[in-house]
Amino acid sequence: MSLVYITRKETFAAAHKLSREDWSEEKNQMVFGKCANANWHGHNYVLFITVKGQPAADTGFVVNLSALSELVRTKIISQVDHKNLNLDVPFMKGKMSSTEVLAVAIWEELYQEIQDMGCALHCIKVQETDNNYVEYFGEK
Amino acid sequence: MSLVYITRKETFAAAHKLSREDWSEEKNQMVFGKCANANWHGHNYVLFITVKGQPAADTGFVVNLSALSELVRTKIISQVDHKNLNLDVPFMKGKMSSTEVLAVAIWEELYQEIQDMGCALHCIKVQETDNNYVEYFGEK
Amino acid sequence: MSLVYITRKETFAAAHKLSREDWSEEKNQMVFGKCANANWHGHNYVLFITVKGQPAADTGFVVNLSALSELVRTKIISQVDHKNLNLDVPFMKGKMSSTEVLAVAIWEELYQEIQDMGCALHCIKVQETDNNYVEYFGEK
Amino acid sequence: MSLVYITRKETFAAAHKLSREDWSEEKNQMVFGKCANANWHGHNYVLFITVKGQPAADTGFVVNLSALSELVRTKIISQVDHKNLNLDVPFMKGKMSSTEVLAVAIWEELYQEIQDMGCALHCIKVQETDNNYVEYFGEK
Amino acid sequence: MSLVYITRKETFAAAHKLSREDWSEEKNQMVFGKCANANWHGHNYVLFITVKGQPAADTGFVVNLSALSELVRTKIISQVDHKNLNLDVPFMKGKMSSTEVLAVAIWEELYQEIQDMGCALHCIKVQETDNNYVEYFGEK
Amino acid sequence: MSLVYITRKETFAAAHKLSREDWSEEKNQMVFGKCANANWHGHNYVLFITVKGQPAADTGFVVNLSALSELVRTKIISQVDHKNLNLDVPFMKGKMSSTEVLAVAIWEELYQEIQDMGCALHCIKVQETDNNYVEYFGEK
Repeated sequence: MSLVYITRKETFAAAHKLSREDWSEEKNQMVFGKCANANWHGHNYVLFITVKGQPAADTGFVVNLSALSELVRTKIISQVDHKNLNLDVPFMKGKMSSTEVLAVAIWEELYQEIQDMGCALHCIKVQETDNNYVEYFGEK
Repeated sequence: MSLVYITRKETFAAAHKLSREDWSEEKNQMVFGKCANANWHGHNYVLFITVKGQPAADTGFVVNLSALSELVRTKIISQVDHKNLNLDVPFMKGKMSSTEVLAVAIWEELYQEIQDMGCALHCIKVQETDNNYVEYFGEK
Repeated sequence: MSLVYITRKETFAAAHKLSREDWSEEKNQMVFGKCANANWHGHNYVLFITVKGQPAADTGFVVNLSALSELVRTKIISQVDHKNLNLDVPFMKGKMSSTEVLAVAIWEELYQEIQDMGCALHCIKVQETDNNYVEYFGEK
Repeated sequence: MSLVYITRKETFAAAHKLSREDWSEEKNQMVFGKCANANWHGHNYVLFITVKGQPAADTGFVVNLSALSELVRTKIISQVDHKNLNLDVPFMKGKMSSTEVLAVAIWEELYQEIQDMGCALHCIKVQETDNNYVEYFGEK
Repeated sequence: MSLVYITRKETFAAAHKLSREDWSEEKNQMVFGKCANANWHGHNYVLFITVKGQPAADTGFVVNLSALSELVRTKIISQVDHKNLNLDVPFMKGKMSSTEVLAVAIWEELYQEIQDMGCALHCIKVQETDNNYVEYFGEK
Repeated sequence: MSLVYITRKETFAAAHKLSREDWSEEKNQMVFGKCANANWHGHNYVLFITVKGQPAADTGFVVNLSALSELVRTKIISQVDHKNLNLDVPFMKGKMSSTEVLAVAIWEELYQEIQDMGCALHCIKVQETDNNYVEYFGEK
């Protein structure tokens, strides 16, 4: 028996902004800085999905990466790619579009369906720019 | 005498969309695909500015990179970073925000001032995603 | 008028070897070293296709990148991805599978069809590993 | 006392395929897709070896990286670089050449000898393409 | 509640050497090889600071990345960037300038102040070259 | 006939500083900023050597990359890797160690010997950090 972790990378390009309607423009500016720009800005996001499990005896696969990629594209990429994270994405409605919140939301979208594929979701990593990224392991 | 080319890289994050108001939604969709999303999308753009000239005898510099970086940040990055290319950027007003058009517009913003620094602008390269980039050398 | 260069990146994974049947094993080993391994080896190749032209007034595009990508996938990637460059690729039959020869062969496959799209092929760049790449500009 | 993790990166280029002789061509195609190509395909693999231990008081080293690199090159890289993972590699004989199985096999090749160097193997990470990688931490 | 990890990347360029004054030149050469060069050598170091915590309800932030970056620049980057790690850096005085020791020293410089920002330092990762990096998680 | 360009990448780590002994400390500071640090700083330099020529009919090679790499390692890398560019490198003696001057000096070291291998040196590119690089094509 060998517990192995396998990671698939996907990318998407999206617009967003960080600002609260219940805060003044001054407060939004002070807390969120240039990320509060009224007319939005955007990023090339990079998404890493890590699952863990035992490699199957016949295939040597923890998971069929084509099936995992298909799932991620259907459930996540089609919702966020070339979209506005604040306005267009059902699973982000009413949430701040920080990278932290986005990573947790993607975890929740994928967790059960990856379980149903016979392995376990281990980590969602979302990279917003070359200089920062977020990881969520399902910890409370 | 040695003609040397030196390149500085800068980055910015911006929102944009590709669509024409004088076209139907169907035509915009057909030509621009997901890039026409009404609520915008965005990218981490990478900008490479290449200048050429003779290294100075005393410094060994074609150009002082700090001064070049300062110029590019003042004239370009402050205008486009965490902004909407269609709505917020004076030098893009009335233009399509394709990477091609953006590269030519940045060339025109920088050309004379780089000349005034004693060297010559050689190339503006703009990378929109890992999978595509544009180069403009001032050719007609 | 502004002559702009735009580059699209595609990737493929292929097996190949460098050896000549009309040479002894010793000579193959001496000239090609470990690249002559009888049972093949392989690479993640990266292909950059650069075309040049005038951005169209209505779209701001030199070429529609989706159409260019579709052409490259149909004509090249479907032929070489997860294939053996020596055995499986019609346009490489009877040729050495060096990166140099591969780049020239890809240029010849794409040149006319890119012309037919209204722009001009400028460069085929093929990267074999992080440590080496080849460029062909159609020069004799 | 400070437990520190140090990682060395090595690369190799290899051919392989995913298919089972006890399966029909149709089943191989269905499960492994283009990875089942009869004439092989290949990758530039990237291997990361992470070891952990206490930095020595006199050198500040958890392990001498030159010695670690020498070990990895002798035991692993010389076996897999410019080779066919299915046909040429003793420690992969009779195994599927999936990235998962390869990572576990490399762990087993290195574990004891790294122990003998006075530190502990923590992780073997194998990257097959830019879009996927596998990690094994010796867990059952 | 969701425990999220967020990582900020910073870079610095520094000179250093690995050698001990209480060892002969021969022993330094034997143990440290070319890293013992008397007139120093240097690297572009990459520093990754990972902190963990609960995203705040109003901002969605585990930590304000601008504030974290400001702290790291004030406490670390200003001390090490374009400096000599052996001669110029107060928090490295009297220590070997191995990547292992450097990572532990940076952890100690940042730990309490990150605690005071309301989250917890999780990992200091220091990359010396593309081929090696070190991680410290505060473990004894 | 097909004129093909092939590029080999090599890396080296070196210390240097930018300052003139015939200038005051204030002037050095004003012109070179933090690059004038008295106790040096350093970089992971990346060197790209591009040669051009006709692929040979029998090998498909413009140049044997192993031979080119061997030449570059003997003539350049062994002189600059883990060295001080100002103090240790014969071909940089009496010169400013700017990236521009370094690229021209490497060109002069390699030009004739590459000619003797039956192809032509086309470009020396030296990258000092991720944010800047220099190219020299032998132009006056």
